[in-house]
Amino acid sequence: MKSNFVLRDENSVFFECGYSCDNQIFLNLDGNKFLITDSRYAIEARNLAINTQIIETNLLFEEAKNLIDKFNIKELVFDPFDFSYGDFLSFSKDIKIFLKQEPFFSKKKRMIKSQDEIQKLKKAASLGARGFDLIADFINENANLSEKELFFEASNVLKQKGELDLSFLPIIAINQNAAKAHALPTQEILKNGDLFLMDAGVKFQRYCSDRTRTAFFDGNLNFSKAQKFKNQKQNEIYEIVKEAQNLAIKAIKPGALASDIDNVARSFIAKNGYEKAFFHSTGHGVGLDIHEFPNISKNSQTILEEGMVFSVEPGIYLENEFGVRIEDVVVVTKSGCEIL
Amino acid sequence: MKSNFVLRDENSVFFECGYSCDNQIFLNLDGNKFLITDSRYAIEARNLAINTQIIETNLLFEEAKNLIDKFNIKELVFDPFDFSYGDFLSFSKDIKIFLKQEPFFSKKKRMIKSQDEIQKLKKAASLGARGFDLIADFINENANLSEKELFFEASNVLKQKGELDLSFLPIIAINQNAAKAHALPTQEILKNGDLFLMDAGVKFQRYCSDRTRTAFFDGNLNFSKAQKFKNQKQNEIYEIVKEAQNLAIKAIKPGALASDIDNVARSFIAKNGYEKAFFHSTGHGVGLDIHEFPNISKNSQTILEEGMVFSVEPGIYLENEFGVRIEDVVVVTKSGCEIL
Repeated sequence: MKSNFVLRDENSVFFECGYSCDNQIFLNLDGNKFLITDSRYAIEARNLAINTQIIETNLLFEEAKNLIDKFNIKELVFDPFDFSYGDFLSFSKDIKIFLKQEPFFSKKKRMIKSQDEIQKLKKAASLGARGFDLIADFINENANLSEKELFFEASNVLKQKGELDLSFLPIIAINQNAAKAHALPTQEILKNGDLFLMDAGVKFQRYCSDRTRTAFFDGNLNFSKAQKFKNQKQNEIYEIVKEAQNLAIKAIKPGALASDIDNVARSFIAKNGYEKAFFHSTGHGVGLDIHEFPNISKNSQTILEEGMVFSVEPGIYLENEFGVRIEDVVVVTKSGCEIL
Repeated sequence: MKSNFVLRDENSVFFECGYSCDNQIFLNLDGNKFLITDSRYAIEARNLAINTQIIETNLLFEEAKNLIDKFNIKELVFDPFDFSYGDFLSFSKDIKIFLKQEPFFSKKKRMIKSQDEIQKLKKAASLGARGFDLIADFINENANLSEKELFFEASNVLKQKGELDLSFLPIIAINQNAAKAHALPTQEILKNGDLFLMDAGVKFQRYCSDRTRTAFFDGNLNFSKAQKFKNQKQNEIYEIVKEAQNLAIKAIKPGALASDIDNVARSFIAKNGYEKAFFHSTGHGVGLDIHEFPNISKNSQTILEEGMVFSVEPGIYLENEFGVRIEDVVVVTKSGCEIL
């Protein structure tokens, strides 16, 4: 049975019909797809949206209600986080059918990726990884760059002269700034002997990559996972995080519980004495949105299935000292997982 | 009488206390200011927020309700577009006071700018204008750039190596692409004899600039308002838009009705036969948000007051031919207005 639904979120609408814009209502009514938008977007929508009727109007809610009236349906599913309260009041006013709340129903639908989506995510991952290598080259050729300058240059390198969009604003952090999981770039200069953390991703055909590396800078930076820091404590912590990620990745397979994967990384870090220094979850789904399902967290009851794509990114953060995080995105396969 | 209110929007919260982040609830309760946020942001919030008590928690709505319970207030103002429907349900559940809807109350409060805000908006405007000049230099020195490349380079020049944020993604459009008010950059190459439209702005201390110029490209591009196109029709249209903007700017003074300012530009364009080709409003407020109040539109009943800041941007768009828009931001003064 097909359920009837309404969507407004850009990636959710794109997933349904291959087009989206920033002023739209998408309706699926008995399997008939409608995209309601204004004249700024209607031409492109007609060219790009697949199997979807485009309705051009400035009165989006009115037109949506007219359409709903025409179909003899009893209920319409919506995501309560997809409407502002004000918009929901406009939309639901005088509506005669049951509006059924289903939080994140579109993200849940997108949790298992198709072969086509996995190919796009692989391409995004490979473009993102290439970006890391180009950024390493740039850093090795240009001395005395600040986090802010590194942030700016890294963003440009990743974008490939505007050909690619970023999945999110890169996190570029040196030494103690790397201890903040959401560090903003400062004027601090990258010097020989520093620890350097970069978390960045690009989009290929709207599908996101996401990757973190922590590396030793000595004028010859590289982003491989084999790193040797001058500081012994940094070395120790780095090896703990690397092994925590390795163990978590090895545990991934269809049928495993997401919280068990989190626990593999978390208990290894705890056993080494850094439980409190790993204060976020082990991973998150990656797709059209940079944060999707499944969550790989303490309480996530999701059972892994083939085709799920998510990050594995344990970290240890020591305030005022430094932080280490290593992140890759994996796809669950028949018998285990593959790093994208 | 001070009214009690709740805010979540970043710029609205920044306006109240000088700090904001992407996970917060701001409360004003009998003049006492509270910012509720999580541990990722609490340290910065404590350093930066002015006269505001920071409350660190992962249960933002719970903590907000606890605080509201403590104060003996009867009603709390909220903006229905500042909450998702789902968040509003969480927030309003079991709440014992009257939640009073006031759409856009923070933007309305910010409509008349202080001297300090006007200085920041002037600085933003001058940084933005300088960006236009640097982009003209770049274009004159680099032949055969596509809209996409121009978009990428213009964004970088405006950002000044990452020192400034953009007010919005620049609009860069050549010839027929300029006929779309919200054109996306294509692979079209800028050639001698082309019409070139650029709409762009930067932020200075979070305050936005906004500017549009339409210019003739002959290898010696400049963004002054004095332009001479090779194509006679482009010249005619350009002069109509320029005079429409000039007349509208001259009509601005305290006491004037916003819709009358719109009508000055609109009726001049209509008199010249292009009424339907000017399909958007004449202007919008500019401040922390790139779109604020007052609207300078057909139906805007706002009476202009000293200190209001808004764009004046008439345009004429001829589908499949070309488009012309000229935009400046002005501040209303005692006796008229000043271009920022």
